[in-house]
Amino acid sequence: MSVSVDSRFLSPADVANILRALGMDTCLRRLTAALERDFLRWGEFDKSARTASHSPVGVIELMPVADAEHYAFKYVNGHPQNPAQGLPTVMAFGVLSRVATGAPELVSELTLTTALRTAAVSALAARALARPDSRSMAVIGNGAQAEFQILAFAHLLGIREFRLYDVDRAATGKTLSNLADSGFEFVACRSAREAVTGADIVTTATADKTNATILTGDMIEPGMHINAIGGDCPGKTELAADVLARASVFVEYEPQTRIEGELQQMPADFRVTELWRVLAGEAEGRRRADEVTVFDSVGFALEDFSALRFLRDAAAELGLGQPLALVPDMLDPKDLFGLIGADASAAAATAAAVSRDLQGRLARVS
Amino acid sequence: MSVSVDSRFLSPADVANILRALGMDTCLRRLTAALERDFLRWGEFDKSARTASHSPVGVIELMPVADAEHYAFKYVNGHPQNPAQGLPTVMAFGVLSRVATGAPELVSELTLTTALRTAAVSALAARALARPDSRSMAVIGNGAQAEFQILAFAHLLGIREFRLYDVDRAATGKTLSNLADSGFEFVACRSAREAVTGADIVTTATADKTNATILTGDMIEPGMHINAIGGDCPGKTELAADVLARASVFVEYEPQTRIEGELQQMPADFRVTELWRVLAGEAEGRRRADEVTVFDSVGFALEDFSALRFLRDAAAELGLGQPLALVPDMLDPKDLFGLIGADASAAAATAAAVSRDLQGRLARVS
Repeated sequence: MSVSVDSRFLSPADVANILRALGMDTCLRRLTAALERDFLRWGEFDKSARTASHSPVGVIELMPVADAEHYAFKYVNGHPQNPAQGLPTVMAFGVLSRVATGAPELVSELTLTTALRTAAVSALAARALARPDSRSMAVIGNGAQAEFQILAFAHLLGIREFRLYDVDRAATGKTLSNLADSGFEFVACRSAREAVTGADIVTTATADKTNATILTGDMIEPGMHINAIGGDCPGKTELAADVLARASVFVEYEPQTRIEGELQQMPADFRVTELWRVLAGEAEGRRRADEVTVFDSVGFALEDFSALRFLRDAAAELGLGQPLALVPDMLDPKDLFGLIGADASAAAATAAAVSRDLQGRLARVS
Repeated sequence: MSVSVDSRFLSPADVANILRALGMDTCLRRLTAALERDFLRWGEFDKSARTASHSPVGVIELMPVADAEHYAFKYVNGHPQNPAQGLPTVMAFGVLSRVATGAPELVSELTLTTALRTAAVSALAARALARPDSRSMAVIGNGAQAEFQILAFAHLLGIREFRLYDVDRAATGKTLSNLADSGFEFVACRSAREAVTGADIVTTATADKTNATILTGDMIEPGMHINAIGGDCPGKTELAADVLARASVFVEYEPQTRIEGELQQMPADFRVTELWRVLAGEAEGRRRADEVTVFDSVGFALEDFSALRFLRDAAAELGLGQPLALVPDMLDPKDLFGLIGADASAAAATAAAVSRDLQGRLARVS
């Protein structure tokens, strides 16, 4: 008996087609719902902090996670100097496979998808943590993530005013241009301080792999929610420690965030709450209107698991994607060696058939 | 400025074509030479034990490693019940990427390749550890790995007599049939004990995920080299502890083998030697003709790194492989969001061109 492993491949163009076909609003809502369902069954997952390989110019990470049915992992890099040579800072792809057999069922681009899922997670957290009357958001860092964050907060929280700042003014211009027809209100600011002033929510999404202080304690206003997504590996932070000290801090998966998040600046006993506990009603989120909340987001493998399953379903609905010959088809699963000979026989048979066909044609010609 | 990430894909058929085009002897020699070069620069690699996700029926692992130039990882499963449902026990694929940018340069099947590289590593170790006058090898477990082990020991060590045993007689039959034209001498044995008797080298390559005792101390003869490749995850061993106790034991990467190898049965201070030290002349291999040596092989990420670089070079020489759109091409590397709109414009332009072409045809028809 032989069974084929039908691995499917989704390219960036396929994922862009999913986003266009379903629309950004539907994609964000479906993905956020999938994320929430998976966060609510937190205990069912085999979780670990990602493995990271650091070099002087960047990091390459593998992020595995599994439940009883599916195993997923993401490959993702972070190289802040990439744009200077024409490459994205972050590139990613991932795989979804069956726990029962180990067979890979989907290989997908995750560069575009990571931006989408990060924005969906940010919005999911902010729905639980930001003041319900929030109407404006500062966006510090207007690179690859900015539009996705803006659209997620507009579609899922009803934010309508966005205050943009980036050290690279062209990045702000790109964001404004991409969302020119959105109907949202934009304010291009000259400093992070100006962007933050009066904002209900502050999103930091900068790329420098340094201990930066994008936000300092004196910039923070009572009741703000801070969505800190840029500080996500050792030595890469965005918030001054005094911002964290005065806030209630929420994280995805504590063991990983202690190493990679803004938290790396704080003592090991600094108190944080995992987001899933707030979503499940096991822990309080925001308790007062004047409380400062921080979502110290580093990106967790479970989120890519949810995203890969969303992509698989959406691609199947829309008939997108191609087969990928990742695993050999074998007549006898123990006969790996036969693959070398089998194709040779097939090739020989083909060659013989071609030869017969040629002789037939030559016979007719002569 | 924009740079394309040209990821290439190698399918099982491409790798089989490499093996056919270059020949098994050349492939084994080139791969073994690549492995030896990489083992000899052991200190240049960023190494870690692989991550494993266990379920009741199998394991899925990620195996990353990097030097200053390349990062590589392998995805590999181990599901001993897979053949009963028509799937291979082990399926694998891997990626080679640039440390400088994180860009993936090669995605390749590694199911076939893992068998080849495991056999090459076994032969590399045996060249250093087996008696130079070895002429016969017992092969216990005649599944997917068997032919590769036999060919590697024949081509690289001059072994000519192979004594086969498997609990599944059909597996032995498959191996005999695949190598019927090899010119090697085969003895199909009725028990592991019969196969081992008189053999210079014993290879164990069984698949059961249990603490098995394929070899016991009373079966071991002075001067034997034991190539133990099947015991490779917690709870999966092949040798009785008394075999290890009387032997000199060599391993790939000690921290991983302590967890996964035959070594998991031994005290934490049981003395072992890493193979690279023997190859580099820093440690002794076999010291006496009557010494029993064990290569407790579990498979290490570095070996897949060497294999992926060999495949990349061989595919380039032979013009094999296809491009794989794994990472988006962006005009502006910070403009990820533009991908959604850009392709829409391109699609619209294509639609318009198709429409004009159709109108032109209709005009000619009418």
